[in-house]
Amino acid sequence: MNVVTTAKIRRDLREELPNLFPEVTFSFNESIDEAEKDLPSADVLLTYGEDLTEDHIDQARNLKWIMVISAGLEKMPFDAIAKKDILITNARGIHATPMAEYTLAMMLQVSRYGKGIIEQEQNEVWSRKLTMTELKGKTIGVLGAGAIGSEIARLAKAFGMTAIGLNRSGRPVDHFDTIITFKDLNQLLNESDYVVSVLPHTDETDGMLTADSFKAMKKEAIFINIGRGTVAREDVLLQALQNKEISHAVLDVFEEEPLPKGHPFWSTDRITVTPHISGISPEYQPRALEIFKNNLKVFSGGGTNYQNKVDPSKGY
Amino acid sequence: MNVVTTAKIRRDLREELPNLFPEVTFSFNESIDEAEKDLPSADVLLTYGEDLTEDHIDQARNLKWIMVISAGLEKMPFDAIAKKDILITNARGIHATPMAEYTLAMMLQVSRYGKGIIEQEQNEVWSRKLTMTELKGKTIGVLGAGAIGSEIARLAKAFGMTAIGLNRSGRPVDHFDTIITFKDLNQLLNESDYVVSVLPHTDETDGMLTADSFKAMKKEAIFINIGRGTVAREDVLLQALQNKEISHAVLDVFEEEPLPKGHPFWSTDRITVTPHISGISPEYQPRALEIFKNNLKVFSGGGTNYQNKVDPSKGY
Repeated sequence: MNVVTTAKIRRDLREELPNLFPEVTFSFNESIDEAEKDLPSADVLLTYGEDLTEDHIDQARNLKWIMVISAGLEKMPFDAIAKKDILITNARGIHATPMAEYTLAMMLQVSRYGKGIIEQEQNEVWSRKLTMTELKGKTIGVLGAGAIGSEIARLAKAFGMTAIGLNRSGRPVDHFDTIITFKDLNQLLNESDYVVSVLPHTDETDGMLTADSFKAMKKEAIFINIGRGTVAREDVLLQALQNKEISHAVLDVFEEEPLPKGHPFWSTDRITVTPHISGISPEYQPRALEIFKNNLKVFSGGGTNYQNKVDPSKGY
Repeated sequence: MNVVTTAKIRRDLREELPNLFPEVTFSFNESIDEAEKDLPSADVLLTYGEDLTEDHIDQARNLKWIMVISAGLEKMPFDAIAKKDILITNARGIHATPMAEYTLAMMLQVSRYGKGIIEQEQNEVWSRKLTMTELKGKTIGVLGAGAIGSEIARLAKAFGMTAIGLNRSGRPVDHFDTIITFKDLNQLLNESDYVVSVLPHTDETDGMLTADSFKAMKKEAIFINIGRGTVAREDVLLQALQNKEISHAVLDVFEEEPLPKGHPFWSTDRITVTPHISGISPEYQPRALEIFKNNLKVFSGGGTNYQNKVDPSKGY
């Protein structure tokens, strides 16, 4: 059986795989171009999911399984994959820890005046006349109460916050005090001091946060987006901040990435821009390959109990 | 009965007190100078504890109780107070929430490269080649496992960390996995990724962290000081960072405060200076006055069960 990678895998993990699976032939490539020669013989592809075209799927005539070691699947050629009945699994869930740590880091940075203090330090200014708030006693509203949202809620609860989550079904999710559905969105926006979007890009979430949504938020509210930039139009968000309808936005995702130089988000005082880093972690590949290794055992044994199976007709 | 304040009390709290205690006469002054006229008739003094001299204690010939609405007692004229057998209570414990939130904020700021990302933002630079670490799985060592240390450990545990605490007696403290005493200090320093000092200034803690202490820490260790600046000599700390014996220091307290302009701490890359802000919170006075109100009930009723009684012979 041939496993072909289209992305650089950390050396210690690369060395471990052939030892764990001596019956498997591994071909480690660092890009899809480098991997192209191996496509015709590949049974399994290991990819970040952003490099595959319909043409690659055609070339890989023996392909039975694609393991995507990320969670974003927007660029996958699902039609071609579905036609050939290729199994897809991904690494969803492994982002929970870094994304939750990022979210709490940013909540604390804004609430404790982090940027202002760093500016004072740069100018060697000692001033204690700073407005700070506590997380304790505040309310967080999480748009997208899945694995990542639940981990954010768990940490927020540890800080003594109340956690409201939004999901499609309204089914209860661990660590949330309340779960609401889309029709009750405004209730969440009304009550939350921190509004965090973890929503993926779908037809339903595209432009979901309108001008009225930001008007429904508290004036002190802090909006944090670690899902997809399309959840709120850029001009809507800018307008809400310029009108002081909310107090701050921390944006890690954008309609266009990288965010272009000169974009008003960079220079707006009450916006913090970070370069799509919430998921970055040294534990990323080890955790993704843990899922891969479990699934490779299932695959080798002819089983069906795969972790994180993706339905190509739905795209998640 | 006369209660005299020597510091500005928030208006809502000032208005509430006479309603709660109609039998008490309150004299609200915003400084000790303004309060001086009321000292001879004062039964109770409410102070931040940094303004009282032996002379004030002599003038206050009816004084029975001093409520210090802070935790630092270094400047209190304990001898004069002890001689007149005046009761002292303070507000220790109320700093736990903001100081623990500060500590986690700084741990996340350093581990997630917060300063570098803010610098990138200032220059409108989008770069994702950033070294970040997770708190999860790391170890925190807290020097001073009291109420504040325990709250820090509680939050650290929520992030999936291991918590080691140090106290005088070695008695177990909530939320710590292990408690050690001074003689085992090096064990804590050896094992901790984050070393946090919450220690007060005493003969025992003065210069306690020596050059060898920093050598005993991990090269990746981050040292955070929210106790007193005297726990490590400034030159010892600077040397440890210049020699890369530890990776970063976050300092909120200093031998001399304000930290003077031009001090090398300001400009050393691997030092983060904050202006003694870890305890700042909008909840500060409400929490301190909660203790005062409880104790005022005890005092009025002739009871003895005071919260946070201070022993003037020990100074804590």
